[in-house]
Formats: sequence, C-alpha cells, structure tokens
Amino acid sequence: MTKIFDIRPVLDDVRAALDQNDLDGATSLIAAIHPADAAAILDELEFQELQDIFARLAPEQGADVLIELDSDSQLELTQSLTQTQFSDLIAQMEPDDAADVLFDLEPAQIEATLAALDPEESDDVRQLLSHAEESAGGLMNSHVVTLRDRLTAQQAIDLLRQLRPEEENVYYLFVVDAAERLVGVISLRSLVMAPANAPLASIMDTNVLTATVETDQEECARLLSRYDLLVLPIVDDERRIVGVINADDIIDVIEEEATEDMYRLANLSEDEDVEDTLFRSSRRRLFWLFVNLPTAILAAWVVSRFDGTVSRVTALVSFMPIIAGMGGNAGIQTLTLIVRSMALGEVAAGQGLRALRREMAIGAINGIAFGSAIAVLGMIWKGNPMLGLVAGSAMLLNLISAAVAGTVVPLTLKFFHIDPALASGVIVTTVTDVTGYACLLGMATLLISYLV
Amino acid sequence: MTKIFDIRPVLDDVRAALDQNDLDGATSLIAAIHPADAAAILDELEFQELQDIFARLAPEQGADVLIELDSDSQLELTQSLTQTQFSDLIAQMEPDDAADVLFDLEPAQIEATLAALDPEESDDVRQLLSHAEESAGGLMNSHVVTLRDRLTAQQAIDLLRQLRPEEENVYYLFVVDAAERLVGVISLRSLVMAPANAPLASIMDTNVLTATVETDQEECARLLSRYDLLVLPIVDDERRIVGVINADDIIDVIEEEATEDMYRLANLSEDEDVEDTLFRSSRRRLFWLFVNLPTAILAAWVVSRFDGTVSRVTALVSFMPIIAGMGGNAGIQTLTLIVRSMALGEVAAGQGLRALRREMAIGAINGIAFGSAIAVLGMIWKGNPMLGLVAGSAMLLNLISAAVAGTVVPLTLKFFHIDPALASGVIVTTVTDVTGYACLLGMATLLISYLV
Repeated sequence: MTKIFDIRPVLDDVRAALDQNDLDGATSLIAAIHPADAAAILDELEFQELQDIFARLAPEQGADVLIELDSDSQLELTQSLTQTQFSDLIAQMEPDDAADVLFDLEPAQIEATLAALDPEESDDVRQLLSHAEESAGGLMNSHVVTLRDRLTAQQAIDLLRQLRPEEENVYYLFVVDAAERLVGVISLRSLVMAPANAPLASIMDTNVLTATVETDQEECARLLSRYDLLVLPIVDDERRIVGVINADDIIDVIEEEATEDMYRLANLSEDEDVEDTLFRSSRRRLFWLFVNLPTAILAAWVVSRFDGTVSRVTALVSFMPIIAGMGGNAGIQTLTLIVRSMALGEVAAGQGLRALRREMAIGAINGIAFGSAIAVLGMIWKGNPMLGLVAGSAMLLNLISAAVAGTVVPLTLKFFHIDPALASGVIVTTVTDVTGYACLLGMATLLISYLV
Repeated sequence: MTKIFDIRPVLDDVRAALDQNDLDGATSLIAAIHPADAAAILDELEFQELQDIFARLAPEQGADVLIELDSDSQLELTQSLTQTQFSDLIAQMEPDDAADVLFDLEPAQIEATLAALDPEESDDVRQLLSHAEESAGGLMNSHVVTLRDRLTAQQAIDLLRQLRPEEENVYYLFVVDAAERLVGVISLRSLVMAPANAPLASIMDTNVLTATVETDQEECARLLSRYDLLVLPIVDDERRIVGVINADDIIDVIEEEATEDMYRLANLSEDEDVEDTLFRSSRRRLFWLFVNLPTAILAAWVVSRFDGTVSRVTALVSFMPIIAGMGGNAGIQTLTLIVRSMALGEVAAGQGLRALRREMAIGAINGIAFGSAIAVLGMIWKGNPMLGLVAGSAMLLNLISAAVAGTVVPLTLKFFHIDPALASGVIVTTVTDVTGYACLLGMATLLISYLV
C-alpha cells in the first residue's frame, strides 16, 4: 500500500451494520484493521455506538484501540467503564501507554487502577506518572534492556535470547557498570556484527547523549533531530538509566508542538479539531475573539479621538485599511519568524537584542519602500502631496512599530515563562492598529491646515 | 548532558582564535565537536572564515560538516571548491546525503561529480537524483540489507557478520523471494531472539507497510506517525525494495513542513531564517508585503466609494477597525484550522462541504454573539440605536464571510494542487476587509436618513 488506509469505506460499512443493529458485524469490521485506523473510525461514531463496539472487542484489542482514541473520547470511555474493566485494559498496556491513559484521571481512580496491577508493573507506571506530562519522564518508555560491560558479544546475544524482552524497538542496548551507571551504548547491529568473544566494553560507544526525566519534551525533540538519533536514553542523577525515548514517540511530539504554536498564533485553542461539536468549537473560538474585542475597541477609540480631523479630511479614511493592514501583516511576519525560531532552538536566550536590531532594520527598509509607494499613491489618487506625505510617514512608522512588537512581545512572554505564541498575535495587531491610526490621524491633525 | 550542546562558548573561542590569525587553532576546536554543532558554528562565521576552516578539515570530517551546513552556505561553499575537492567530499558520503547535496547544483556539475565516483555508488546517487526532492524517492536511503526468505536465523546472522554493512540503523531486515520481491520484514531484535534454526519465512512479519518512490514525503510522515513505525520501506512497481526511510529522517521533514505552513500562513518565505542577511530578508518580506498591497488598496478603494456617507456620519469610522479586525481574526482562525487539518490528513478530499457547513454555523453563532455586543456598544457609545444595528449586522455578515473564505480558499488552492497555506492569509483578510467595510458603509448609506 502507498497510502494511509482509507477509513471511509470501512466507516460506511460500519455505519450500515449499525443501522441494521448488527453490532457483531460492526465489531468484526473494526477488529480486522490496525488499532490506529479502528480508533479513527470509532472517533467518527456517536459515543453510544463507540461504547457498544468497544465493549465487544477482546481486551488486548480494546487496550490497543483505547490508546489511539482522541483524548476526549478516551476520557469519556474511561469514565463509562467499571473499575474492573478499566484495570483489565490497563494491565494489557506497556507502562508508558498506561501512564498516558492515566495522566488525565482523578487521583482516586489512578490509585484504584494501580492497586489492581501486579506490583512491579504498578511501580513502573507510578514512576512515570510522577513526572510532568510534557517532560522526558512523562514521555519515556521505562522498559530498557541493560547489559553489564564485562559480557562478551556472544554472551550478550545469548542473554538477550534468554530474556526475550517483550518491548518493541530494542535496537540500542545500554551498557552499565557494576553500580548500574550508564557507561556506553551499543547498537544491536554492532553487537551482531562484532567478533563473538569481544567484550562489550571494547565495542561499545562511550559517547552517549542523554537527557534527564525533567528535560522538556521539546528539548528531547531537538536533541533527536539535531543529532539524528533513533533513541535517547533518560538517566537519573546518578546516571542510572530509567527509560528511553524513541524517534517515533518524538514524531507525535513535534506534530503536537507545531500544531499548538500554529493554533496559538491564529488565536485558536490547541484542543480544537475539526471533529469537535459545534457548541464546543464556538465556545472555544468565542473565547479568543472575546480576548480580541477590547483591543479592537481600543483601536476604535483611538480613531474616535480624531472625529474632527476625519470629518474635515474624509480622504484619510481610505488610507486606514492600507496602513493598518500592511502593519499587521508585517508584524505577524516578524512574530511568526521569532516564535518558530525559538521553537526550533535557533534564537536562544540572550540573542533578543540582536534579533530586535535586525527586525527594526528590515522594518525601516520596507517602511521606506512602502511609505514612498503610499506617498506617491496619495499624491496621485487624492491629488494632495501633503496627504501622501502623511500617509507615507504613518506607513514607515507603523512598519517599524510592527518589527518592534513582533520581536518584543514573544521574547517578553518567554522571559516570563509563558508560551511565546500565546496571545502574541492579538497584542501585535493591536499595536500596529493603534500606532498606524494614531500616526496617520495624529499627523493629519497637526498638519490639518495643509490638508483641507 | 541534558541540553543541546551550547555552541556559544566554542564560537567565542573560535572567533578569538581567528582574531589572532590562528586558523589551525580554530580548526581543531571545530574538528573536536559533533559535525552538527561544527556546522552550526561555521554558519555563524563570515563566509571567508568558514571557507578557511573547512579547507583544513580532514575529508571525512568535511563531508559530515558539509551535509549539516544550512543550504545557502552549502551551495556557496560547493561553488568555491575545485571539482576534484568537491568530488572527493561526495565520495565520502552515503548516497542519500550525496544526493541531498547535489540536488541544487547545475546538471553539468552533477555529471562531473558523478563521473568521479565509483560506478556502483554513482548509479545509486543518480537513481536518487531522478526522484522529486520532496518525494519518498528523494528522501530515502538506498542502502538496504535484504535477506532471502529461505535462510535460517543463524545463517542470516552469519551473513550479516560477513557483510558488515556500513550503513547506520539496519534494525529492520527485509526478506525477499527468489525474484527479489519484498515478502516480509524481520526486526534485528526478532532475528537475534529467534531459535537459531528457524527459517526467516517462519519468523518474519508478512504484513509490511510500504510506499513507492513517488509517494509525497508528507504522506510518508503520516504513515510513520500513524502506525508508529521506525522505518518505512520504499518499493518499485514490482515490489522490489529500492530504499528505506527512517523515523529520524522524517523528524526533519515534519519540522520543515510545519515551518513551511506556518511561514506561508504568515506570508513569509519558507527559506527565510534569522541568520539571513538583512538585504535578503528585506527582499523576501517586501515580496509578500507587495502581494498584500493591491488587496489593501482594494479595501481602501471600497472605503473611498463611501466618502459621502463617511463625511456625514463620522462615527462610522470608529467601527471600521472593530469589524475588519474581528472578521480578519475569525477568518484566520478558520483558515489555520483547515490548513493544519489538511496537513495532518484529518480533512480529506470530499469533506469540504461538511467543513464549510460546520464553519458557517460557528461563524453564525459567533456573529450573533458579537453582532449583538457591537450593536449594544454602538447604542451606548454613540447614542444611536440604528448605528448599533448597522454595525452589529455588518459584524454578523463579516463573521459568516470569514468562515466561508477561511474554508473555501484553502480547499480551492488544494483542488488546483497549490499549497493551501500559500497566499491564503492575504486572500482571506482581503475578503473580510472588503466585506466588512462594504456591509458597514453600504448599509449605512442605505439607511443614511436614520443615522444623521
């Protein structure tokens, strides 16, 4: 196959089966496909239908599907199960998946669920739950194969055959000393390729990149991406390995973080998706539009201060959309560049002043270009050179203020440990609206005798 | 280490060495660190300094660093080398890295470089170059280990020991039949864990997800992400394996594609980064602001059509920023949601009408909420109920038009195989500006007798 499995035909079949009350038929359609696709179909159904089908899945299948459901359905489904049903599902999962599902639940429910697991498993999950959800600790898989450094390659392979570790992706094996401290890494490939009697200490790579449980998941993503790693070991303060993060876990993180930044730049709630109910979506958008309203009214108030000027020189009004529009556009350009560069780790702390100087210079160059264009337009269109000069100067000043706002707002938010993408767009366009209108109408008021 | 290597202290040391004309000292500082970090430092230097240090690196180091340089420095450096120097560097690289470096060069230079490679290597690279840069073919690594299905686990391991394949990340081994067609996959882990005499055919997984060389890299990213794969095999029309894509290659693709969408939504050139020269950045931003100019002038022209109304009811001007601003904001919300959902594969073709109905309903709900708020504001602030009614109705109509434009523009671009993020923002805000001003001032003109 060359495409992601197209869920629509199966979804249609499932709906047809449900219409005929053929729950077993619908369930067997769902059970036959990949859990990720099954979850995508279940997310499209009414919750009651989802629940009916889910109840008929075998426990292992149910566990695989539950992990893949979107977070709203997952939570709702979790709350509709009995404690025993839920504990049985959790017992089927790898510790990191179990922790992911448990993260959003009430402490009492988490405790009841952990009590039903076998002690070793529940310790692993409890350990994972103790870390922040967006940290390396919250993301890592705690099943790791470690090998003592004094083993030979063949002994290590024999040991692996005997252990038959269950977890996926044991492609890098971590080598530890007598005190269980991480001293090196060896790829399963190098282990297989090495002479059978070579000790691990002689074939391992001692230069291991690690992160700690507190490392932010974005920082982990940058490490994997920058150094092209397939796996990142997570260690405690004594350099004992407590888990690993795989590249495929990080793909989801990167998509999530990019979506979050993009949505926040557009004043959208990052939880919104196209499958939300109308009511939930409206409420979420309303919130952000509501945040925007006072700032729009602020701009309106600035304009209203110049009623007298506007009533005498109506032609000024035509320039308002141009100056505010171009300023807003330039401000969002700068803002997006800075926010994305910070996310990718290209603009580090302490480089703010350099970025500001750079953006102001670009704003000034572009401001002179567009200010001149608008000035000429004003002279020709309205036949008034002074009007052109006022509009052109307002454009220049507004493009510089756009550069300043686009740089300073995200850097300031970051300084206070607030996501730089959050609400930056509203603030930046408010600054450009207010500055643009104030410059245009203010200068016109001062020079009113040359304009009428 | 828990952080990405901080290049600044080393950069300072390198600069200090360069200031004392100690080129060898600077070079040994660079040679001592990871190629990705070395490249990050070189990208910060003047091109002449970069060139001087690069010339002193050993060929293998030079090759590793060249791959990691940003695309502008890479191209400039490539063009400053003699053909022999360049060919020697390319000969050190894996075929996929070599193809990446060659992609942007002139055909004549590519030919001269390939002619200097050994024939097998040059065939591999030529094959990769024949695919589109953003397709699976352009991204894949063509060195793949394949094993015949009739080998036993131990024979396969012995064969691997003997072949000692050079390439990284041989964690999945692909099993082929006598005609070299892909019939299954086995992880190196399963191979090591399996009984020594088990034939591969009995332990392999026959359910292999594949892509073809033409598959778009975004589609490959979605496959890896949805099914949590660490590697995706790429096959030709006869299902013969021609390459693999690893999860760590896809991390860069996902970051690139997200950056591209974000920049395009903000009318930024996706090539821009904070390290560009001022002139290059200004020119790139000017282009997009220039695209925006005619649309801003269109909005200005619409406003100017109502000069008569504006001069009689100056209070209308105060509402212009609110109605245009809120409309633009709502339009960008819808646009970003739709563009990102398309990128993540959540809104498939054929679901456009459903998305449109949904967005229009949200626009209408929010339009009624904000239209009422603005109407009340208008009555209280300006003491004129009819003015409030006109402003409120304009707000309602503009939020619905924002929903329509935010949905229809990206879907239409996609239909014509244009990136939905490209220029969508400019079009959507033009629609909301023009609709907002036309509704507000048009209704005011019709109802002028009640307003003055």
